[in-house]
Amino acid sequence: MAGSSVKPTPVLKDELDIVIPTIRNLDFLEMWRPFFEQYHLIIVQDGDPSKIIQVPEGFDYELYNRNDINRILGPKASCISFKDSACRCFGYMVSKKKYIYTIDDDCFVAKNPSGEQINALEQHIKNLLSPSTPFFFNTLYDPYREGADFVRGYPFSLREGAPTAVSHGLWLNIPDYDAPTQLVKPLERNTRYVDTVLTIPKGTLFPMCGMNLGFNRELIGPAMYFGLMGDGQPIGRYDDMWAGWCMKVICDHMGYGVKTGLPYIWHSKASNPFVNLKKEYKGIYWQEDLIPFFQSAVLPKECVTVQQCYIELAKQVKEKLGKIDPYFIKLADAMVTWIEAWDELNSTAK
Amino acid sequence: MAGSSVKPTPVLKDELDIVIPTIRNLDFLEMWRPFFEQYHLIIVQDGDPSKIIQVPEGFDYELYNRNDINRILGPKASCISFKDSACRCFGYMVSKKKYIYTIDDDCFVAKNPSGEQINALEQHIKNLLSPSTPFFFNTLYDPYREGADFVRGYPFSLREGAPTAVSHGLWLNIPDYDAPTQLVKPLERNTRYVDTVLTIPKGTLFPMCGMNLGFNRELIGPAMYFGLMGDGQPIGRYDDMWAGWCMKVICDHMGYGVKTGLPYIWHSKASNPFVNLKKEYKGIYWQEDLIPFFQSAVLPKECVTVQQCYIELAKQVKEKLGKIDPYFIKLADAMVTWIEAWDELNSTAK
Repeated sequence: MAGSSVKPTPVLKDELDIVIPTIRNLDFLEMWRPFFEQYHLIIVQDGDPSKIIQVPEGFDYELYNRNDINRILGPKASCISFKDSACRCFGYMVSKKKYIYTIDDDCFVAKNPSGEQINALEQHIKNLLSPSTPFFFNTLYDPYREGADFVRGYPFSLREGAPTAVSHGLWLNIPDYDAPTQLVKPLERNTRYVDTVLTIPKGTLFPMCGMNLGFNRELIGPAMYFGLMGDGQPIGRYDDMWAGWCMKVICDHMGYGVKTGLPYIWHSKASNPFVNLKKEYKGIYWQEDLIPFFQSAVLPKECVTVQQCYIELAKQVKEKLGKIDPYFIKLADAMVTWIEAWDELNSTAK
Repeated sequence: MAGSSVKPTPVLKDELDIVIPTIRNLDFLEMWRPFFEQYHLIIVQDGDPSKIIQVPEGFDYELYNRNDINRILGPKASCISFKDSACRCFGYMVSKKKYIYTIDDDCFVAKNPSGEQINALEQHIKNLLSPSTPFFFNTLYDPYREGADFVRGYPFSLREGAPTAVSHGLWLNIPDYDAPTQLVKPLERNTRYVDTVLTIPKGTLFPMCGMNLGFNRELIGPAMYFGLMGDGQPIGRYDDMWAGWCMKVICDHMGYGVKTGLPYIWHSKASNPFVNLKKEYKGIYWQEDLIPFFQSAVLPKECVTVQQCYIELAKQVKEKLGKIDPYFIKLADAMVTWIEAWDELNSTAK
């Protein structure tokens, strides 16, 4: 069951890396110790490389700062964001594992309605190891979960489902709102524990949040680029959204599934809405064009790998979104650089 | 909140009819009395017209048996199923109200996790009165619900949502499984209360169950035809499914929303899986062609009313599904008859 209490996650010990954009809070790793200690951590420091990140005793980790990224990628380091948690995608690239779990350092262990600590990682692993149902909606939600199944009227030919590429987890306490909603509802807290996991249907886009996210790196890793955000860029807080839209279009093309719902983490603090507004305002505006673009994006049959899909999508971004702002031309180029860098670092694995 | 305990539903007293296919169980209405007594009931007797249906004192109702249907519709009565709960759609046609709630007589009042009786009708009304979000998925589910909103990355231009046409409720205890699943899992019970309502995205089909279903008759009524089932027909138990697929294609075309999730009812008894298998087996087989048909069905722009959409869909059924079995030619003709009968009975209301 989803809400088991403190015990080591029993599977995927050698197949999963935990990627954390930065750690400003030592309590963070202490709180997750029973769940994370057995895994390898990849920490990607998002700011000043001279600052030392303290990692408590007992954790197995590697840490990359900006100097490391520049050294490893050379000129291709330009595709990795600086002074923004979007830099976390560098960790996806250097990992050699099949699965990635990424989490923010202001996310703590949540409790289920019975008061038990939620092993978020275990639930993500369950989500990733069981199939998805992107082609038809099952009204009792995840049909592979204990106590559930496909309901009357669900075509039998679709009951094998599709491989699951992404597991998107949610947040209790501080909801993931944009700056305008934060400003309007400063006191709103998410207290509703919705006990379900569901597949986002094929053809449907959603806002993917990077706070509590698992994915199958072998299936979809190269599409998980978090774009150009932060230092020197006109927007922020659209890194995970960008990755989510690109990833979903590619999953739909490749026949992979994307799940959302359980597990919950406890999101401890709201970021500053005024700072967020500054980061977001161009994104909020541009998004009105981005969504129709992604909703109508079609990838040709010839694209049979995620890399090919992503390069094709970069081409379409340049052609169609480049007209909106020169930023998208730069972003499209960075998307290509990202794939080149990915293939360089992952050539032996392929 | 969803799970309020016994108190009269405060809205839509004069705008909603409750349609019940038949009542074999007097406890049924007694149990629902606090929730239903203020509403008008339309009972459509599915079997032998000479049998008397007892309705307890205090309920305001009208009852139609086969003789009534024949008298009212004349030759067009051929489109209404006999000896099958699919006959309930006759009740949708004779109603003059804006909203319909339909429920089976083996569905009782469920309890929420706090032990309070669930006012299913009140939740359906809430679902129908608030907008849907068919064009983009919101990860915190229904954004209009208290304590929730649209999350970061949800386009602002889509936050007004779409008018809600259908509210599909779920079932605790006996899940709505097909005969093969019933046979394989005779003891499975649905015990999971998932505290959410969500919109089925545009372009996605789902298995609509008629056990616990609300809809806006003014928006979508003419698409809620439950087909030809039961006596003299080669299949059963696909009445609600057929209506659901036709309805969803038309809602997607018209820009209306369809919700599923809360409220739960308590489904008290499983129907006989051997009898069900006999009713279902052709449906299970045909369904593999029906789903691709509905997934690819496109309605032309010229169809601007539900009736026009439905007639067009009937044409496509005849053309494309008629090849599978002559049954679909008969069904397509019945779909046209249904619209003619609907318009005849509802001409003054239009």
